[in-house]
Amino acid sequence: MVRYILITIYNMKKQLSLLAALLLLSVCTFAQQALWGGANIISPEINNDNTVTFRYLAPVADSVQLTGDFLPTVKVKTQWGPMDAPGKVNLTKDDKGVWSVTTSKLEPELYSYSFIVDGVKVTDPNNVYLIRDVASVTNVFIIKGDKGSKGDLYSVNNVPHGTVARRWYDSPGLGMKRRITVYTPAGYEADTRTKYPVLYLLHGMGGDEEAWINLGRTAQILDNLIAEGKAVPMIIVMPNGNAAQEAAPGESSLGLVKPTMMLPKTMDGAYEESFMDIVKFVESNYRVKADKSGRAIAGLSMGGFHSCHISRYYPNTFDYIGLFSPAIMPNEKATSKVYADFDGTLKKQMDNGYKLYWIGIGKTDFLYKSVADFRAKMDAMKMPYTYRESEGGHIWVNWRIYLSEFAPLLFK
Amino acid sequence: MVRYILITIYNMKKQLSLLAALLLLSVCTFAQQALWGGANIISPEINNDNTVTFRYLAPVADSVQLTGDFLPTVKVKTQWGPMDAPGKVNLTKDDKGVWSVTTSKLEPELYSYSFIVDGVKVTDPNNVYLIRDVASVTNVFIIKGDKGSKGDLYSVNNVPHGTVARRWYDSPGLGMKRRITVYTPAGYEADTRTKYPVLYLLHGMGGDEEAWINLGRTAQILDNLIAEGKAVPMIIVMPNGNAAQEAAPGESSLGLVKPTMMLPKTMDGAYEESFMDIVKFVESNYRVKADKSGRAIAGLSMGGFHSCHISRYYPNTFDYIGLFSPAIMPNEKATSKVYADFDGTLKKQMDNGYKLYWIGIGKTDFLYKSVADFRAKMDAMKMPYTYRESEGGHIWVNWRIYLSEFAPLLFK
Repeated sequence: MVRYILITIYNMKKQLSLLAALLLLSVCTFAQQALWGGANIISPEINNDNTVTFRYLAPVADSVQLTGDFLPTVKVKTQWGPMDAPGKVNLTKDDKGVWSVTTSKLEPELYSYSFIVDGVKVTDPNNVYLIRDVASVTNVFIIKGDKGSKGDLYSVNNVPHGTVARRWYDSPGLGMKRRITVYTPAGYEADTRTKYPVLYLLHGMGGDEEAWINLGRTAQILDNLIAEGKAVPMIIVMPNGNAAQEAAPGESSLGLVKPTMMLPKTMDGAYEESFMDIVKFVESNYRVKADKSGRAIAGLSMGGFHSCHISRYYPNTFDYIGLFSPAIMPNEKATSKVYADFDGTLKKQMDNGYKLYWIGIGKTDFLYKSVADFRAKMDAMKMPYTYRESEGGHIWVNWRIYLSEFAPLLFK
Repeated sequence: MVRYILITIYNMKKQLSLLAALLLLSVCTFAQQALWGGANIISPEINNDNTVTFRYLAPVADSVQLTGDFLPTVKVKTQWGPMDAPGKVNLTKDDKGVWSVTTSKLEPELYSYSFIVDGVKVTDPNNVYLIRDVASVTNVFIIKGDKGSKGDLYSVNNVPHGTVARRWYDSPGLGMKRRITVYTPAGYEADTRTKYPVLYLLHGMGGDEEAWINLGRTAQILDNLIAEGKAVPMIIVMPNGNAAQEAAPGESSLGLVKPTMMLPKTMDGAYEESFMDIVKFVESNYRVKADKSGRAIAGLSMGGFHSCHISRYYPNTFDYIGLFSPAIMPNEKATSKVYADFDGTLKKQMDNGYKLYWIGIGKTDFLYKSVADFRAKMDAMKMPYTYRESEGGHIWVNWRIYLSEFAPLLFK
């Protein structure tokens, strides 16, 4: 193939023809692939029966393994007792140095995986679809499944698509301009008479304004739910909940820094105190229903903590509250006024009324017990809420499910 | 560290304290890193003297090399003669299994690199900054340098930031909805009296509506040029130039497919014929200066081809034309009316007048000769143009430079 192309080029006369130039461009790519060790390998290959074949070229490796969230977890012994660890399977090598393995049939879902080559985790060079989670970048693939399945809901389908914008807003409360991701539903720009409701959707620790749109597949889920008539058209606002940060790693003047899980000023009240800067920005920049009935707030883990505190600190502001695997806890050390009188403000929120207080958590989530305690408190107060207990733990698989179930309940 | 954290957790009483919960979240990350073979390695580390240290953990590998566009290229012998290949350097291993190498001092620039481990190209697991180019994903880093340097111009700085939106527009000419990337400058949303000029910025073969915003650093370059007063505030529209494609790979209902360089309907006239669908969308959805003096069109490689043909096919539409390493060539096989009467329409474009016809190309670009032929044609016609000859070849390094030099010349 390369030889054929190069001969074509060397036979060219003075005037480049379109075809030859096209081929030349290809040669650059081919040459580069060859020099850089690439080959035209398909990985992952999703087979018709929803088994998946993974391939990795590594002629001199001693061992290539696959690890991913579709493999059964294994218990490993540690000095603190048994812990779950991601499962692994071995790949086998063919005579061309390509290692491969085929999974059993997988259910529709968005999955993550990596290879482990001679003990070192690497990405799949044949799969350009990667998502960052804090400081790790992992390959993903989707088993699409039938209409309405999770895999279908997380896919781009032939439906009207919303707009996703990365903007900067002014936060006087935090004394900085900050980056924010905004999803406006299909039709928003054209339908200039309608005022849209807004869901404020908050990320967890280590996340930022890129988390929900990338790991959470927010745009795909909402495009699909709205197209099917399951959710009303709404704006989704995805702010950055790390009050010390202007923007996601790489998107501020700090440069291309390595992301970290632990950041200052994430759960000390600064974000909650300044949250109305975001609401004000949204309500003065978008055509929105700027009242309690048009506002929802939800978040995962630390974002559930923020949603709980923001919604009771401004106890007559949101008609819809969603806590996804929330980190519910008294903040014993924080001195912010946000955390004062938890019980009193919660009661005030209840007395002011709301349409939905939704709590979701996985059965094996490490925050399960604290959520059970919080529910006991709400029960004792006779504070109404909807409770959703899922399988699994503190993982994105669950947060995508919770968003898919929560969004259809809003603004109806 | 992990031991300390876990002991803290195991000492916890019934009520989770905020601190303990924070630490628990960290443990999840720590545990995962440990299980997945990660370690807290900094790579790349940009040293104070602008040398760069790269590190890669691979205890049992026999060889780890670094390749990148900052290393001198090497000539390799092939059956067709000597060819340039990316340079490589060897890393050395310490007693912990971490391989490392430090470069010589690098000039300010955005650079790309990969590791080669036992002959196989891999990404750097400690660097989350990756950019896709067609079907390859490569790590990047920036040497920032002094104010005004290329590295500075490609960085996010403390300046007002524009908005970047991914939208979908209707193309009746191509019979589909299509995805498009739009940069609106800082102040666009607030300054509702001003009408902004528009630069239509087109990608090359294998690219799509993600190419300029990611590989081209368009938002950073324009934010910085506008903040310094070097360019006027303008909207940049980055369409998808592959007329058979609705959207970039992964962003259409085709799913997470492997991108390819060769696509149908890229240089057959379909895109040029339907280009006014894009202009119409922009001029009815944005507050723009909707006349010739407010329109510029530029593109790289195939996008230069498109810009050349679109601007002469609609010969009184654009006052500013930029051809970056353009694929200038007669299209002998295409039957589209777009390519008929090249010389006549070019003359018509000249007679109608324009303010700038800018051509940039690298000295070693494989398209150098065809651009020289095109310039000879223009000279013979006495058709005015500005010519910029740079070092180097058909690479993004040059296209970022050309955008940085072209944008300041527009709309003044």
